Amino acid sequence: MDLSRSSLNDSAFLRACRGEPVPHTPVWFMRQAGRALPEYHAVRDGIPMLEACSRPELVAEITLQPVRRYGVDAAILYSDIVVPLKAIGVDLDIVPGVGPVVAKPIRTRADLDPLRPLEAADVPYVTQAVRELVSTLGPTPLIGFAGAPYTLASYLVEGGPSRDHAATKALMHADPGLWNDLLGRLAGIAAAFLRVLVEAGASAVQLFDSWAGSLAPDDYEAYVWPHSKAILEEVGQLGVPRIHFGVNTGELLGLMASAGADVVGVDWRVPLERAIHRVPGKVVQGNLDPALVFAPWDVIADKTRSILTAGRQAPGHIFNLGHGVLPQTDPDVLTRLVDLVHTESART
Amino acid sequence: MDLSRSSLNDSAFLRACRGEPVPHTPVWFMRQAGRALPEYHAVRDGIPMLEACSRPELVAEITLQPVRRYGVDAAILYSDIVVPLKAIGVDLDIVPGVGPVVAKPIRTRADLDPLRPLEAADVPYVTQAVRELVSTLGPTPLIGFAGAPYTLASYLVEGGPSRDHAATKALMHADPGLWNDLLGRLAGIAAAFLRVLVEAGASAVQLFDSWAGSLAPDDYEAYVWPHSKAILEEVGQLGVPRIHFGVNTGELLGLMASAGADVVGVDWRVPLERAIHRVPGKVVQGNLDPALVFAPWDVIADKTRSILTAGRQAPGHIFNLGHGVLPQTDPDVLTRLVDLVHTESART
Repeated sequence: MDLSRSSLNDSAFLRACRGEPVPHTPVWFMRQAGRALPEYHAVRDGIPMLEACSRPELVAEITLQPVRRYGVDAAILYSDIVVPLKAIGVDLDIVPGVGPVVAKPIRTRADLDPLRPLEAADVPYVTQAVRELVSTLGPTPLIGFAGAPYTLASYLVEGGPSRDHAATKALMHADPGLWNDLLGRLAGIAAAFLRVLVEAGASAVQLFDSWAGSLAPDDYEAYVWPHSKAILEEVGQLGVPRIHFGVNTGELLGLMASAGADVVGVDWRVPLERAIHRVPGKVVQGNLDPALVFAPWDVIADKTRSILTAGRQAPGHIFNLGHGVLPQTDPDVLTRLVDLVHTESART
Repeated sequence: MDLSRSSLNDSAFLRACRGEPVPHTPVWFMRQAGRALPEYHAVRDGIPMLEACSRPELVAEITLQPVRRYGVDAAILYSDIVVPLKAIGVDLDIVPGVGPVVAKPIRTRADLDPLRPLEAADVPYVTQAVRELVSTLGPTPLIGFAGAPYTLASYLVEGGPSRDHAATKALMHADPGLWNDLLGRLAGIAAAFLRVLVEAGASAVQLFDSWAGSLAPDDYEAYVWPHSKAILEEVGQLGVPRIHFGVNTGELLGLMASAGADVVGVDWRVPLERAIHRVPGKVVQGNLDPALVFAPWDVIADKTRSILTAGRQAPGHIFNLGHGVLPQTDPDVLTRLVDLVHTESART
């Protein structure tokens, strides 16, 4: 047990998160657990997403599938950013082909009432799945994740996915008091959820602010940053690395770093070396264009090598895609990509 | 006639495009002609979009509506980026709520055959509408626009709107020869269309690369930039200012400028002063978050003043939103915004 703990702690992924020398550049993929894998569709068959997220044995199996298949350096718990909201009783569902849909969008202060604090007892299946996984994974780290307050607020205010986030931004500016109460509650829920994950054994956390990139930096800084910072600070006391990521966040990278990230995830739109200059002293994660997996292998390999080269300019680099694995991705390409990252980075 | 020509040439918009001193900061809005205006829905009632684009009297009326209502400093011809493709016989339509849908997506070299050069005779309704408009508008400049090759290619390859542009990027990398032939043809079509517009009397052109921001800068530079550059160079010989714009292009601004833009349009995600540093010597256009029009007036006014202040650091600044007018926008807010831009910028 102690031996396993120590080899876990010494894993390439956790060493890279801490900016320590690594035997090879660690690699994992956002959305590695799920839709691109036939074995995922086989076990999920007929089971709605949120139900799957609440069955510990299924969560464990789906989380392990990409570790077995790809040989990635970290597992990420199969879940969804709305799981904590569902757990405290918010009336929402994940509609296939649409995304999270909320029954009663937030418009007034009274609509905040269902957003009560989350406790470990609300998500026993998460604790159980994480414990089982940590035991099975041994030296392979498990990443837990949560949705950041702005992204969760966007779903709650819009009632579902939105292209322009107009209602969310309107509320933010029209009633900053209500807005800050909303985001404060969501920050508390996210922090509590991440605490559950870490206390059950997760070795690192990723805070996903999927929609942060819809904001101009001044609005992000005034209305979002303080709440994401509160989460990252609270999680910092748990002693695990904190990764922070969103797409279209090229202009926000400095702020996302200063919110308290140990590792800043980088969208493929920002060349990694440019991103590194924007977050001096931080470890970076990324950033191959997820659509590049459909290119010929030589192209993928060239881009991967360039990203690995750029990554050496940071205190640490975790290879990843610049966004989640696309559903139509050929898993064999990802297997080959993991091998390439390992061999190329071990060689130099 | 000479007097009108000279006052047109001396308009705030054209002076700003050339980086000359202006009596006030000129302002217009992307998608000002269209969906946010009740008078637009009234005249379009029952008429499909592409049919509306081919009726000169309707094009003229819809183009004039926002000039009358908002008092903007420039008109933009009511059209769509797929109009030139439709005009040469590509089988496509604009499906309400979806966007452009192409009957036979491009997969092989033979699929390029329909992409023949465009001639003025293919778009007589455009020439007629522009001539009529220029005469009616007098000293108010008319902007003509075209879709840039990458964005057009994306629709043609994907068969419609796409979130990940996976097929487009796959073709780009798998068959660069076919890709460059495709983009070369699209560049020729776009350049020819802009030439028709300018020869009929348009005073400026905007090249929209709506989806360019889906590309990492190295791919943009290798596979897209040369084709956009070819268009902008050809149009440069016509003696009118060239505006170049796309969303999510923060990392591409320098390349879009070097492709030959006189004016670089800026997404709201990039603070205007930051954008100005990325395109030294260029005039900038933008960049209020289009969702900000739903905020309280004080917030809109504050942001607008900040943008005007930042814009003074560039050789010229044309105020605009950072993307198109959202359909649910209250037109009265835009009227007030035009007044504010004019009075604030005239004062200082």
